[in-house]
Amino acid sequence: MATQGQVITCKGIFPSFSIIPPAVAWEPNKPLVIEDVQVAPPQAGEVRVKILFTALCHTDAYTWSGKDPEGLFPCILGHEAAGIVESVGEGVTEVQPGDHVIPCYQAECKECKFCKSGKTNLCGKVRSATGVGVMMNDRKSRFSVNGKPIYHFMGTSTFSQYTVVHDVSVAKIDPIAPLNKVCLLGCGVPTGLGAVWNTAKVEAGSIVAIFGLGTVGLAVAEGAKAAGASRIIGIDIDPKKFDTAKNFGVTEFVNPKDHEKPIQQVLVDLTDGGVDYSFECIGNVSVMRAALECCHKGWGTSVIVGVAASGQEISTRPFQLVTGRVWKGTAFGGFKSRSQVPWLVEKYLKKEIKVDEYITHNLTLAEINRAFDLMHEGGCLRCVLDCQV
Amino acid sequence: MATQGQVITCKGIFPSFSIIPPAVAWEPNKPLVIEDVQVAPPQAGEVRVKILFTALCHTDAYTWSGKDPEGLFPCILGHEAAGIVESVGEGVTEVQPGDHVIPCYQAECKECKFCKSGKTNLCGKVRSATGVGVMMNDRKSRFSVNGKPIYHFMGTSTFSQYTVVHDVSVAKIDPIAPLNKVCLLGCGVPTGLGAVWNTAKVEAGSIVAIFGLGTVGLAVAEGAKAAGASRIIGIDIDPKKFDTAKNFGVTEFVNPKDHEKPIQQVLVDLTDGGVDYSFECIGNVSVMRAALECCHKGWGTSVIVGVAASGQEISTRPFQLVTGRVWKGTAFGGFKSRSQVPWLVEKYLKKEIKVDEYITHNLTLAEINRAFDLMHEGGCLRCVLDCQV
Repeated sequence: MATQGQVITCKGIFPSFSIIPPAVAWEPNKPLVIEDVQVAPPQAGEVRVKILFTALCHTDAYTWSGKDPEGLFPCILGHEAAGIVESVGEGVTEVQPGDHVIPCYQAECKECKFCKSGKTNLCGKVRSATGVGVMMNDRKSRFSVNGKPIYHFMGTSTFSQYTVVHDVSVAKIDPIAPLNKVCLLGCGVPTGLGAVWNTAKVEAGSIVAIFGLGTVGLAVAEGAKAAGASRIIGIDIDPKKFDTAKNFGVTEFVNPKDHEKPIQQVLVDLTDGGVDYSFECIGNVSVMRAALECCHKGWGTSVIVGVAASGQEISTRPFQLVTGRVWKGTAFGGFKSRSQVPWLVEKYLKKEIKVDEYITHNLTLAEINRAFDLMHEGGCLRCVLDCQV
Repeated sequence: MATQGQVITCKGIFPSFSIIPPAVAWEPNKPLVIEDVQVAPPQAGEVRVKILFTALCHTDAYTWSGKDPEGLFPCILGHEAAGIVESVGEGVTEVQPGDHVIPCYQAECKECKFCKSGKTNLCGKVRSATGVGVMMNDRKSRFSVNGKPIYHFMGTSTFSQYTVVHDVSVAKIDPIAPLNKVCLLGCGVPTGLGAVWNTAKVEAGSIVAIFGLGTVGLAVAEGAKAAGASRIIGIDIDPKKFDTAKNFGVTEFVNPKDHEKPIQQVLVDLTDGGVDYSFECIGNVSVMRAALECCHKGWGTSVIVGVAASGQEISTRPFQLVTGRVWKGTAFGGFKSRSQVPWLVEKYLKKEIKVDEYITHNLTLAEINRAFDLMHEGGCLRCVLDCQV
């Protein structure tokens, strides 16, 4: 391509400054603005990706809010997207220009202690760089605006027409797959499915409770249904969510506001002693406790899927664990990103998992502030932004 | 036997009153006294056992201290013992007079939801009675002193020359086994071994941390060594324990008092990222947190074995779980009591597990207050009391 080896100037999004367009996060909690962003060519082991579609996720909103003490500004947010490889740096062999890809905030190098353990998807190879908003090769950013560096975010930074990622952070997928749909396989949907299939390993006949019926909670429901769960109880304080939730497999709905008793007791009573598996898909530490304590004595397993605000803590009486409950968590649903995101894309193409059904809104990258508003309004599951118009 | 069907008057121990001898716990935190206790014949589904030997465990001391809000007084404490069936009530088929047995505070009925689940050893059949110090059949005690009922404890009450237990709470063992040794297989040793084998399922090559090197902690070490752990790190504030601990498999010793850093950080540094499995064998909620947080990101599993004081809570940041650590607990090491205690006895007879090595003192039932003093002094692992002299 004519752009290979050149700095690309494109539209990117970050928290507000004043220049319009493109969209960069200059400061927390200010409207994102579209800025003309310079995206440097990929260095060794790096891949420059033309982002065609990106969705928004609550983690973007959390960092943008300024509440994440590890959030770095200015930065380009975004981590749930799909695009096409524009160019690759030295030594990159597994993708080439033109490949359709999904950026993966959870890398997979297949070589580190974590990847080789066979016990986790938490690759450690580029974490020391992605955790501080830079690339491994020179500990610098590939983004700049008028010469001022702009931090990367989660190793993906997909709120931009072009981004640079590490080669271990990009999954090559079937080019037949519609990128405006499968971009969702970069975060929320795999997180929910994997929490059920990889982390909890729900068996047929199980009773499952899901706290929070957003995209992740609905994906948990879908995963639980596929696993053969006999009862899938959705818990949410917004009763409007139940109709949608039914389509994803939720069989019963409990609104904590309808009960005076603590919600864990309501669920224990409803299930003759507690649920077999519970999933917290909100990020609220009080709900995490309820999710553990509604589990059945002897075997109930609770999986934390939601991300709590920094500094918050979970608590319970140790007796809850001594009497057989298990407390776990999951990140990206335990999926090994480069190996399994392509498999999830195939499952979508074979209509074995839903994706389209989570997309409630479509906007353009320039409309990103409206998209964040929609996310907070409640009726929105996923809003997909077209980045190239 | 001449005693069958008759009330037996024998020596029993409970918190102090004033009549001497025998030993009953009339009130919390007062010296135990030996009382003449009347032990009624077993009713349907019950077994009267002549206790030959009993050991002491910290749970007895905890209830005796009065700190357990569920402790009921007066009561006969004791739950780690061995004896011979004296008589059986109607419908009891699995043991008969003369059988050598170990009372099991964790019942196993093989019929309830818990027993049939295949996922837990926490039988629920007699819990509603044993939890409140009575027998299921008539919701009354079989113990009395001068007509005043004395509560049962943990469904076992082994600080007595005779006790009555439910038939689901007694394991028949090989009569060749020395009862003054295998009485230990009623609690502490199986709890430690099972925490490793059943709850954590430690694999060969694992790095293991054990917090607290009493009987249970040493049994964890023994279990971990048998499982092929490559490093077994013992953590205790009493450096005198290390020499003994070596004999049970501990390969390294860490004294938190020797370090300024939090002990979890010391262990993470010592093990290139954390241990594979940790076990809290103290009952201290702060240590439980450290035990979780010293686990390796991605897969480290922490098992709570110690029993914390009532009302205390464990806490951590949910990020600890979201990044792959697992928090569990164990009761009686996950062993199904009636099925597996006899198997543990066989393992002892084949010299595959230690028992004798945990016995540091031998006294008589009448010397029980001295035995409790020894337990608190530190040099004592298990003190076995001869109940019939």
